[in-house]
Amino acid sequence: MPNGGWLDGALNVVAGVEVLRRVAAEGTPPVTVRLVNWADEEGARFGRSLFGSSAAAGSMADQEELRSRTDANGVALPDALREHGVELDSASDARAGLEGAAAYRELHIEQGPVLESMDLPLGVVLGTFGVERHQITFRGQAAHAGSTPMDKRRDALAGAARLELEIREIAKRTGEGAVCTMGGVVTKPGIVTSVVETAECLLDQRHLDAAQLASMLDDATSASQRFAQEEELEVEWERIWSIEPILFDEGLIELAADSIMEVGGTSHRLPSGPLHDAAEGARAGIPTVMLFVQSLRGLSHTKLEDTKEEHLELSVQALDRLAAKTIARIAAP
Amino acid sequence: MPNGGWLDGALNVVAGVEVLRRVAAEGTPPVTVRLVNWADEEGARFGRSLFGSSAAAGSMADQEELRSRTDANGVALPDALREHGVELDSASDARAGLEGAAAYRELHIEQGPVLESMDLPLGVVLGTFGVERHQITFRGQAAHAGSTPMDKRRDALAGAARLELEIREIAKRTGEGAVCTMGGVVTKPGIVTSVVETAECLLDQRHLDAAQLASMLDDATSASQRFAQEEELEVEWERIWSIEPILFDEGLIELAADSIMEVGGTSHRLPSGPLHDAAEGARAGIPTVMLFVQSLRGLSHTKLEDTKEEHLELSVQALDRLAAKTIARIAAP
Repeated sequence: MPNGGWLDGALNVVAGVEVLRRVAAEGTPPVTVRLVNWADEEGARFGRSLFGSSAAAGSMADQEELRSRTDANGVALPDALREHGVELDSASDARAGLEGAAAYRELHIEQGPVLESMDLPLGVVLGTFGVERHQITFRGQAAHAGSTPMDKRRDALAGAARLELEIREIAKRTGEGAVCTMGGVVTKPGIVTSVVETAECLLDQRHLDAAQLASMLDDATSASQRFAQEEELEVEWERIWSIEPILFDEGLIELAADSIMEVGGTSHRLPSGPLHDAAEGARAGIPTVMLFVQSLRGLSHTKLEDTKEEHLELSVQALDRLAAKTIARIAAP
Repeated sequence: MPNGGWLDGALNVVAGVEVLRRVAAEGTPPVTVRLVNWADEEGARFGRSLFGSSAAAGSMADQEELRSRTDANGVALPDALREHGVELDSASDARAGLEGAAAYRELHIEQGPVLESMDLPLGVVLGTFGVERHQITFRGQAAHAGSTPMDKRRDALAGAARLELEIREIAKRTGEGAVCTMGGVVTKPGIVTSVVETAECLLDQRHLDAAQLASMLDDATSASQRFAQEEELEVEWERIWSIEPILFDEGLIELAADSIMEVGGTSHRLPSGPLHDAAEGARAGIPTVMLFVQSLRGLSHTKLEDTKEEHLELSVQALDRLAAKTIARIAAP
């Protein structure tokens, strides 16, 4: 992450080293325990997230397309990999490393404000949100702001404004964990003397439940059509990107909740808005769970990213408990 | 007007020639009758509207500033004037030409959809709208679209959306002739994965009545403050431009209405959204009135600008009647 913080990703690697140290100190464990430092989760350089984990999970379906990607300086992705001793062609061989994996655990900063607002250091992650991203374009008619009476207008911005307010109601109706965001509107011609002819809106909707996500998308679509009809506009939807929700393992969620309680916390359960490498393993069928530790002011992807030291300590202890419980369950189910 | 139509401005000059022809054919009139072809009403080349009429009306307060204006090709305004035999320094001498003027009449295409929607060829113009133009900036907090719950957001776009919908209610409440337009919104950071941090809105409000215009501005201001408070945003207003309403002469409005009725029309009265040269004379105290003739589809400032031939004929007849009535009233009040 360019200009990122000191905890995003790095926390889990360092915490994992501490877990391995404790496991090793207790003698040979009954099952193989591995620490993985995934390559390029963020994808900022080549616009492709979850690089290492998708290779290992066998879901790198876009290997051919990745061959032609270049970074901002024109360096090709395969050349950048080669500099670090990795061949794109054989990246999917990493799949062997996950064969027979019985459990995957990951500690991460929350990167959001929920735990801080509840005054909790730790939380159990239920899974990663499904996401629906669309560009929605309302088309009306440009007209002179001075000579066109209000009832003779076809104002595309009115469609966008009504949809922006409606998606908040849709999220509220859907209940906890539902988020809908209009991240931007582009208005054309966009001048003070003209009614807006086209308004291009960016919509992002997320939910942990696929049916609820589909229903939020349906609601937004039909609302936009109703607004278009009432405002005498045309409306057009174009999908930008989507991903299904990925749920973590119920058994591991219970162990994670127990681990948090043992270090003195409350076992709050929450979904993850951002994607994580853990999602790739979970999608491939490996029982998976994540722990979140509080992010101060919910900030991440900035130098301001931080977490209280006592919360970091608790989070490493909780990860260690979770590792011990998981190893014990796998060894003697 | 670059790429403009064939009637905007030109109609009145040609119609005026016909009026002069009729007046001259009847012998020496009892008062001086003049036809003026105003220089550069539109101001498209140097960004300064009403050039000739403001010089003649004595309201060219920005003469010094005009000296430094250049067009897109770098030609200075005084040089462009000189090519056409006009000196900027002596432009204000034109004031002498309006001394003692007893009445000003002008025929213009409506440039809006009102007369066409009422199926009327002609209308009497009551005056030109007062205009208030502002940039309104809502400031919230950028936040991750995935990890920020709905109730933890400070979404600047919500403020803009609520104001866009509210200004329509303000115009509706104010009644006929009131227009409010949000011509554009710029959202930042404007990406699909972030809640909008700032939304910059362009607002244009117009009314023929100064008190009503001030009240519409007050209503929009206090609504924006209420929305900012409810959405936990900051809001800032910056005036871009404003002009007071300019009312035409009541006596001449009656004569214009009579003239339209005599040529077989209905004397609908309407304000003018766009500014006109007539406003400069009216502001300088010369009794003024304008006639509007229907614009097809309300279009102007485009090659598509057009008016039915029978409506053009009626409009020239009505202007001629108005001229005759005005001359008669001035000669024998």
